[in-house]
Amino acid sequence: MATDFTEEGAADAVIESFAATPDERLRTILGSLVRHLHAAVREVEPSIAEWEQAIEFLTATGQKCTDVRQEFILLSDVLGISMLVETINERGAAGATQSTVLGPFHMTRSPVRALGDTIDLVGESEPCVVTGQVVGTDGAPLAGAVLDVWQANDHGAYDVQEPGKQPAGNGRGLFTTDDQGRFWFRTIVPSYYPIPTDGPVGDLLAATRRHPYRPAHIHFIVSADGYQPLTTHIFVAGTEYIDSDAVFAVKKSLITEFKEVDDPELAARYQVSNPFRLADIQIALAPAS
Amino acid sequence: MATDFTEEGAADAVIESFAATPDERLRTILGSLVRHLHAAVREVEPSIAEWEQAIEFLTATGQKCTDVRQEFILLSDVLGISMLVETINERGAAGATQSTVLGPFHMTRSPVRALGDTIDLVGESEPCVVTGQVVGTDGAPLAGAVLDVWQANDHGAYDVQEPGKQPAGNGRGLFTTDDQGRFWFRTIVPSYYPIPTDGPVGDLLAATRRHPYRPAHIHFIVSADGYQPLTTHIFVAGTEYIDSDAVFAVKKSLITEFKEVDDPELAARYQVSNPFRLADIQIALAPAS
Repeated sequence: MATDFTEEGAADAVIESFAATPDERLRTILGSLVRHLHAAVREVEPSIAEWEQAIEFLTATGQKCTDVRQEFILLSDVLGISMLVETINERGAAGATQSTVLGPFHMTRSPVRALGDTIDLVGESEPCVVTGQVVGTDGAPLAGAVLDVWQANDHGAYDVQEPGKQPAGNGRGLFTTDDQGRFWFRTIVPSYYPIPTDGPVGDLLAATRRHPYRPAHIHFIVSADGYQPLTTHIFVAGTEYIDSDAVFAVKKSLITEFKEVDDPELAARYQVSNPFRLADIQIALAPAS
Repeated sequence: MATDFTEEGAADAVIESFAATPDERLRTILGSLVRHLHAAVREVEPSIAEWEQAIEFLTATGQKCTDVRQEFILLSDVLGISMLVETINERGAAGATQSTVLGPFHMTRSPVRALGDTIDLVGESEPCVVTGQVVGTDGAPLAGAVLDVWQANDHGAYDVQEPGKQPAGNGRGLFTTDDQGRFWFRTIVPSYYPIPTDGPVGDLLAATRRHPYRPAHIHFIVSADGYQPLTTHIFVAGTEYIDSDAVFAVKKSLITEFKEVDDPELAARYQVSNPFRLADIQIALAPAS
């Protein structure tokens, strides 16, 4: 008995070859991937030269990866796969603040800071105050919740990208909410910035005339005992590229006004110069299931 | 105006991001891939940990590649993608001998040999004679057609896999048909063999309880002026794994009897010891379009 390869029977034959996979979940995943990949190939009908180009692209993407560069995550990001996976995984968190991608710059441990501290270790730009409250989806304030915060500076660079130029820990802080679930800290308004373009993903963006920019945002990971941790951003309302984030991470509910405030008394209370910018946010966590 | 990421709108948003791609073919390919990849992700609903495993697998696959090892082609092979692409591309060749995968061992230039020469440079195994004729799809003999032939030995190893052990060029030959389109050469019957298993693709086969073996075969690339070149194998009828080729390359029309012959006169004519094995094939090429 010999098999006989045909276009029509190919996907079934490959899926059948995985029939003895002991891990049922792996078998399901491979079956779905094979079905959809074969469908794409049959739809596109690639030439041999196009298939070779695809092999070369995937190989170069793998070979661009190092300890500090993950080109396959970048590829997943620019194809919207990362956001799709992230969003599927937040389905259980009804009523909670929406999540978005972690991104590649959560690389170092954020310094522990006290409420009201600044995460801007340079002090040359217009000050910004971020205030807010962490609550449960039932509205109850969450005292002792931990916020891990990181952001780019006003030139769009993270500290880890400019080791000699920015002090380590610039733009980063680990804060704990007070007994009312409240938090506040000082910073500067971050800038939009490009994702790395010196690899195969950059070549893909160039060939498709896509820009590499992400709209301005501040990253948060928020956690509290008994609640699902939340990975998200707040996006700066009015930032460039809010309608065309290179990694598709914008959810409208995460866009936050960074108001211009001219109020010497309030500035003094937050220990910033006047005028300043102020963003106030509420972060709701879903109970752990 | 800000975008708003949703599971339902994600594929459309990504496809829209490629709208300005100048190369229409690239835009079509990316659109189809994004549509089917997103469909697979929405069907599978991977956890974050599963997505991370996928990223790690693809990265390791890229990093396993070297000048002499192409792990992404191997992945394409074991998922049946290589055969699907190959078969789609032979559609224009109605009436021609069927094609199959090139495989990874066509790495060196085959030595030019005269009709009747042996490609077995070791001479320790039962001899085999391969005879045949190259014709057009109209049946006309093709004089001066070139056959590039390569095969594993009777232990399932190609010369390039055993550089110290097999002479270079063992199992390889470049033959030109006579004025009747005929060819004949001496060799040994090849063995089945495993594809390389010491990389991520080997791990995938192990995790899914798939064996890595390919049924015994001889490779051919056949070309003639004015005709489409053909990349194919002949499979040894009765070989193990003919019903479960690890790379799905078997087409029934390519299975060939390697007959046991006991005929001292015929053996003398082919300059082999008696008894011997004999495979006779007809190879039909389609006109160039």
